[in-house]
Amino acid sequence: MHKPFFKVLGPEDARNALRSFKPLETEEVSLDDALFRVAAQPVKAAENVPGFDRSTMDGFAVRSMDTFGATETAPGLLRVKGEVAMGRLLPVKLKRGEAVRIWTGGALPGNADAVVMVEHTEELDSETIEVLKAVAPFDHVVRKGEDFKAGETLLKPGQRLRPPDLGLLAAMGRSAVTVHRKVSVALISSGDEIVPVGTEPPPGCTRDINRHALAACIREAHAHPIWLDIAPDRLDAISSLIARGLNSADLVIISGGSSMGTRDLVIEAIQTHPDAEILVHGVSVSPGKPLIVARVGRQPVVGLPGHPVSAMVCFEQFVVPLIRRLEGEDVAYPFLRPTFQAFLTRNVPSREGRLDFVRVRLSRKEDKFVAVPVPGKSGMISTMVRAHGFVRIEADCEGLYKGDQVTVHLFSRWIEEPLEKEYLSGHEAAAGSARDLFATSQQEQLSKV
Amino acid sequence: MHKPFFKVLGPEDARNALRSFKPLETEEVSLDDALFRVAAQPVKAAENVPGFDRSTMDGFAVRSMDTFGATETAPGLLRVKGEVAMGRLLPVKLKRGEAVRIWTGGALPGNADAVVMVEHTEELDSETIEVLKAVAPFDHVVRKGEDFKAGETLLKPGQRLRPPDLGLLAAMGRSAVTVHRKVSVALISSGDEIVPVGTEPPPGCTRDINRHALAACIREAHAHPIWLDIAPDRLDAISSLIARGLNSADLVIISGGSSMGTRDLVIEAIQTHPDAEILVHGVSVSPGKPLIVARVGRQPVVGLPGHPVSAMVCFEQFVVPLIRRLEGEDVAYPFLRPTFQAFLTRNVPSREGRLDFVRVRLSRKEDKFVAVPVPGKSGMISTMVRAHGFVRIEADCEGLYKGDQVTVHLFSRWIEEPLEKEYLSGHEAAAGSARDLFATSQQEQLSKV
Repeated sequence: MHKPFFKVLGPEDARNALRSFKPLETEEVSLDDALFRVAAQPVKAAENVPGFDRSTMDGFAVRSMDTFGATETAPGLLRVKGEVAMGRLLPVKLKRGEAVRIWTGGALPGNADAVVMVEHTEELDSETIEVLKAVAPFDHVVRKGEDFKAGETLLKPGQRLRPPDLGLLAAMGRSAVTVHRKVSVALISSGDEIVPVGTEPPPGCTRDINRHALAACIREAHAHPIWLDIAPDRLDAISSLIARGLNSADLVIISGGSSMGTRDLVIEAIQTHPDAEILVHGVSVSPGKPLIVARVGRQPVVGLPGHPVSAMVCFEQFVVPLIRRLEGEDVAYPFLRPTFQAFLTRNVPSREGRLDFVRVRLSRKEDKFVAVPVPGKSGMISTMVRAHGFVRIEADCEGLYKGDQVTVHLFSRWIEEPLEKEYLSGHEAAAGSARDLFATSQQEQLSKV
Repeated sequence: MHKPFFKVLGPEDARNALRSFKPLETEEVSLDDALFRVAAQPVKAAENVPGFDRSTMDGFAVRSMDTFGATETAPGLLRVKGEVAMGRLLPVKLKRGEAVRIWTGGALPGNADAVVMVEHTEELDSETIEVLKAVAPFDHVVRKGEDFKAGETLLKPGQRLRPPDLGLLAAMGRSAVTVHRKVSVALISSGDEIVPVGTEPPPGCTRDINRHALAACIREAHAHPIWLDIAPDRLDAISSLIARGLNSADLVIISGGSSMGTRDLVIEAIQTHPDAEILVHGVSVSPGKPLIVARVGRQPVVGLPGHPVSAMVCFEQFVVPLIRRLEGEDVAYPFLRPTFQAFLTRNVPSREGRLDFVRVRLSRKEDKFVAVPVPGKSGMISTMVRAHGFVRIEADCEGLYKGDQVTVHLFSRWIEEPLEKEYLSGHEAAAGSARDLFATSQQEQLSKV
């Protein structure tokens, strides 16, 4: 049998291979279902927002020129000619020296062009106020169309919708938005030694960690996991589960079979499908080397290593970018994680030409934050559990030294209280004091790109 | 009428007030529903994992001593006495000079204590191999109990469950876990001028942005929004919607009514409920000052400003920590966001004693990344849409200068391609070159705490 081509790719080349996958079709969803979905059409403003000059303060709408020169010691006098009811227009035009009471969000009447804050007025009687501070035109006013103007392009296709973007759509009166379909991911574990979690493993067997760890990774990436089954190490069984996956989901992931014998089995199983094409078979990343990315027709099939740590690293580095492609983003990167600066507590060697992900645990040692490498093999899930995040050792680097300052990419947006407090209290910003030196090193960094 | 006490709190004091709320009750959920939930009980390992010495490589299980001295030029000879089937124990004991074929994940037989990688062997015939490299005891083996040992505490109460934590639970045979209940949040908008998104706003009215922007913020915080209604500016209407919220959800949020007149209305409406206690009324944060946090019985009621930017800032700074408290975490902080280092393009003044959040847009200017402050008032949702994130100006700082290096807290884990590429390619890590200087400034930072 023809042996598949096996050339280990660098992570950038592997990710570039993902760019050949096309985004999924689009659908219209309500704003309640649109969070973190990817816009599929440009959205233009149909009207000016706000549709009227709107007060941003409680106070008095005025003609600003009537307040010029007013101070606490020489207040200006204004006659109060009524009050703007919220949600209504007050059909008056101010004459010289007149004001109307207005609340935050209220519409300025006729020729008023500014608002005097109530804190800067003194009420003499129900019809007269003193103004203690002059206002300039448009002070404390959001002008008609200032938020956005009719015709303005507000969202572009490929843009992922964050909370404020949904607020923007609401402001424009759009209660639905066209997005790319959410990615469904069929998940298969493989290996004769793998048993379901609910089973007492017979001697020599191991419970299925990846089914749960990877389903969680899929959810974290805002995709939808569809669990299929554990495949025994047989070509027909693997092949038919992949076929089921291709029929039921946008993307098929099979983990395990990262050993040489079985790896051939997964590749062979993929190749039993017509139109199968192997795009990636091996990547220079550790842990994670035996990655498979294939295309069957238009659909991606990914083979992840069986060791849970390797599987999760590969998921983040290659499956997250793939999901993003399918969702319609024009990128091929993992999502960004919060980072934490710390000092390494021991030397970490690395092989040149390979991108290494070192699991580390953060702690505080005297007056510094330290990153303690978590020892243990990539088959040990506990090493991920004990770690707060990863440190990258780039391919052009032979290792890191004890005392090196490193950037820790955190596994989650939540870490323990003392660390979070430091994060908030400007620990990261402290690096700012090193500004000039940083600027230099950043320039060097860029000039290498 | 008795005027409520109004003393503006610093953000730390306001967050400390949240610590008086108790976590919600607990429930047992399947691993499929447990992602990012908070463990409510300690979890101990019931057994050793793995339950046997397990190979991490394809190759040959050996007695390591039989390989000592083997090299490429002086290979050792071993007799192959069979193969370990995956998921089975091979009931043999190796004698001197014997090996068995084994795959990744296989159980080492009897007195084998190491695995020789297949790459370091040469097959002479079906029963004889040459070993080209010696192995030490336990090379390429995860030993019984090495991942974790029976009795070891693996998860603590208050710990938020990440993907590897779910993998760990699976490894232990736990298909369910006891967590705190998910927080449900009743959401109310208020204001006579606010109309639903599907409505054409009459003159002087504004569409309800917060209902959608805040619902999305609630979802981003892994809580469950329950939309109630828009309350007109009437005490009875606001009070009865709050009552509905208290009956249907764990936490009630009412946005709007941040103007002085209406703010009194929200405070008054809260105080119509027996056992109401105002914990926070005003906070020294901009945008966001008119924050209300109250307790009605055991339940929190939060009043957010009506301006969408202020509402979102207050949500992140105070409601996210509150949700975390209710979920059972022993912390009172916002979640962490990815950060990006950039240089400010203009001076940004700030008032001392107030924590300011400046919206900025990132871009690249020649060989640097710059943070461009987005101009515009907190009532303009477009200013959040145009921004990539926030820069904090601490209370003890009177402003930032053009050219200052700042830490941008990104609104989402996804930004545009060129920026992501730089993020990945070590842009953040570049700060590491400034190590020594950073170390100094970090020490200074810490000694101030």
